[in-house]
Amino acid sequence: MEHSLKQKLSRYACTALLAAPLWAGESTMRTVFAHRRAVLAALLAFTVAATLSTLPSLAQNDPLPSWNDGAAKKAITDFVTKVTRAGGPDYVAPAERVAVFDNDGTLWAEQPAYFQLLFAIDRVKMLAPQHPEWKEKQPFKAVLESDMKALAESGERGLLELVMASHAGISTEAFEQVVKDWLGSARHPKFKRPYTELVYQPMLELLGYLRANGFKTFIVSGGGIEFMRPWVEKVYGIPPEQVVGSSIKVKYEVNNGKPTLSRLPEINFIDDKAGKPVGIHSHIGRRPIAAFGNSDGDFQMLEWTTSGSGARLGLLVHHTDAEREFAYDRKSHIGKLDRGLDEAAKRGWVVVDMQKDWKKVFAFEQ
Amino acid sequence: MEHSLKQKLSRYACTALLAAPLWAGESTMRTVFAHRRAVLAALLAFTVAATLSTLPSLAQNDPLPSWNDGAAKKAITDFVTKVTRAGGPDYVAPAERVAVFDNDGTLWAEQPAYFQLLFAIDRVKMLAPQHPEWKEKQPFKAVLESDMKALAESGERGLLELVMASHAGISTEAFEQVVKDWLGSARHPKFKRPYTELVYQPMLELLGYLRANGFKTFIVSGGGIEFMRPWVEKVYGIPPEQVVGSSIKVKYEVNNGKPTLSRLPEINFIDDKAGKPVGIHSHIGRRPIAAFGNSDGDFQMLEWTTSGSGARLGLLVHHTDAEREFAYDRKSHIGKLDRGLDEAAKRGWVVVDMQKDWKKVFAFEQ
Repeated sequence: MEHSLKQKLSRYACTALLAAPLWAGESTMRTVFAHRRAVLAALLAFTVAATLSTLPSLAQNDPLPSWNDGAAKKAITDFVTKVTRAGGPDYVAPAERVAVFDNDGTLWAEQPAYFQLLFAIDRVKMLAPQHPEWKEKQPFKAVLESDMKALAESGERGLLELVMASHAGISTEAFEQVVKDWLGSARHPKFKRPYTELVYQPMLELLGYLRANGFKTFIVSGGGIEFMRPWVEKVYGIPPEQVVGSSIKVKYEVNNGKPTLSRLPEINFIDDKAGKPVGIHSHIGRRPIAAFGNSDGDFQMLEWTTSGSGARLGLLVHHTDAEREFAYDRKSHIGKLDRGLDEAAKRGWVVVDMQKDWKKVFAFEQ
Repeated sequence: MEHSLKQKLSRYACTALLAAPLWAGESTMRTVFAHRRAVLAALLAFTVAATLSTLPSLAQNDPLPSWNDGAAKKAITDFVTKVTRAGGPDYVAPAERVAVFDNDGTLWAEQPAYFQLLFAIDRVKMLAPQHPEWKEKQPFKAVLESDMKALAESGERGLLELVMASHAGISTEAFEQVVKDWLGSARHPKFKRPYTELVYQPMLELLGYLRANGFKTFIVSGGGIEFMRPWVEKVYGIPPEQVVGSSIKVKYEVNNGKPTLSRLPEINFIDDKAGKPVGIHSHIGRRPIAAFGNSDGDFQMLEWTTSGSGARLGLLVHHTDAEREFAYDRKSHIGKLDRGLDEAAKRGWVVVDMQKDWKKVFAFEQ
């Protein structure tokens, strides 16, 4: 909307300018004042167009078209209006407008399993020919036999082994390519679409709306930082340096004259729960003023964000839509949301009811 | 210069526009074509002004006034011209224009000792009344007696103890204030000025020049990340999220209902030597195309940066000016530059001779 309005004004300005001499030629009765009016109108149109380009929010009709009108949407727009109103009591300078977003279940889907786990499973299958011993060794045996029960039984330690086998042992550059290749070919089991299409349209609009209002948007995810960086710039408009996540250790070495960063099978940092404020501090170095999550893994991130002084926004996406996406909360093994639901009201956090608050979940919906 | 040129063009555009109807009124002999000429001239002036605003480098006379003309300055401007020339063979998209700067000895001075060590010493002295046992315990005894020889003899382990005692045990917010307070009162032993005035004017210009050309500038320092963040935004224009440095561990906890990040007496990451490419990867997630350092601690950062494909710039500041600053290199305990001097030519790295290449070292010089 903003764009077309600016175009219209620019067109009007040009028409007025070019028409000025034509009007002048039509009749000698037209005086200096008539010309002046046309030229002043053109100048005015230019000025308005230039001003609009610096005030995108003014020119937008609805910056969040996929959000239904309601308390959640209103809380978001009220907050943004408040912190951007120059001279107002809640004004926040642009440098301090830091917004953090969880990824799994907040920006893209996370069912029936974290997509990164599905990636690890596919990669173990691909690497299996080089590891004949995996046929008899858990958790690899479970993966190769698609025995999800046995895989679950391998527990946290089994999953860690899976992650190390599938994520370490190669250079950072090679891993980036592996992730891109997988995203290019893998399809979601329910939606039969690339995983990068399973991003929530309302959240994409929210990211854009915040950035248009001078916010810097960051991902702060329990997922692997190097699993996200290869695609989030294209999909969310978030550059790699604004991604915080879990990581394994990396080592710099010169191999046959070639400088390389090698991924080691050793945990470096877990960016989940109480780790999220730590990751935020390490990477961003400021306390955010807005935080968006969907599970109890985001609790401390919202707590840290909203306990600062001044206007703050904490928001939880509640997965209530089994038809368009998935419905899960307190009992789910993935994206469990229990304490967050209990304490949201008390803490002033917004809870988004996906079914009611979102007009559309995915961009591909009709 | 750029600014005034744009202003002139804008003034010309307005004059031409406002004059158009006046010219028209002067004589009925003036035809449609005359008006059209005036209006087209006005439009042209607007277009030129708008174009210039997107091409700041074209309009600048000398973006690096404190640099003497010579090979170093030319290497910098040639590089920037090359990577920003749209359609050229060395063009680099703005998102990939990442430049990394060491801090100690590259952006500000580091003699007679790293300023952070001088901070640690002052802080230990300030905390001493709460620690009567320090009077008899090294390295604290050495600090309290200003016995720099004994302090040096306490070695790396002694320094580490000093850092932990002076940097840990408080919240991140309290530490930020401690750093600000110290910078507000401490004075450099030689220059008798606040440490934040001991920043190199030519490097400030370089930071600004790169940013004006679409670069994102980062600090990548062996110094403490939380010792830098409180002041580098104001002094260098680099926000906290673009600072990479060494760190101690931080823990998130809720104390009496108050969420807090507490600084623990435990090393988290050393951002020096082979650690610098690792820190770059962790925080930035892209390989820089330009790297600026001054010591062998920056060797791997320059190596990693300049071994990527396409145009690259590696630069070492060589401290050769005992009169205006300090002169030291191969034999220095602080900021030792030995391997870098040996290999710079072979690797195509620029070596800045501070005495010859810099017209001015500090802004306060006459």
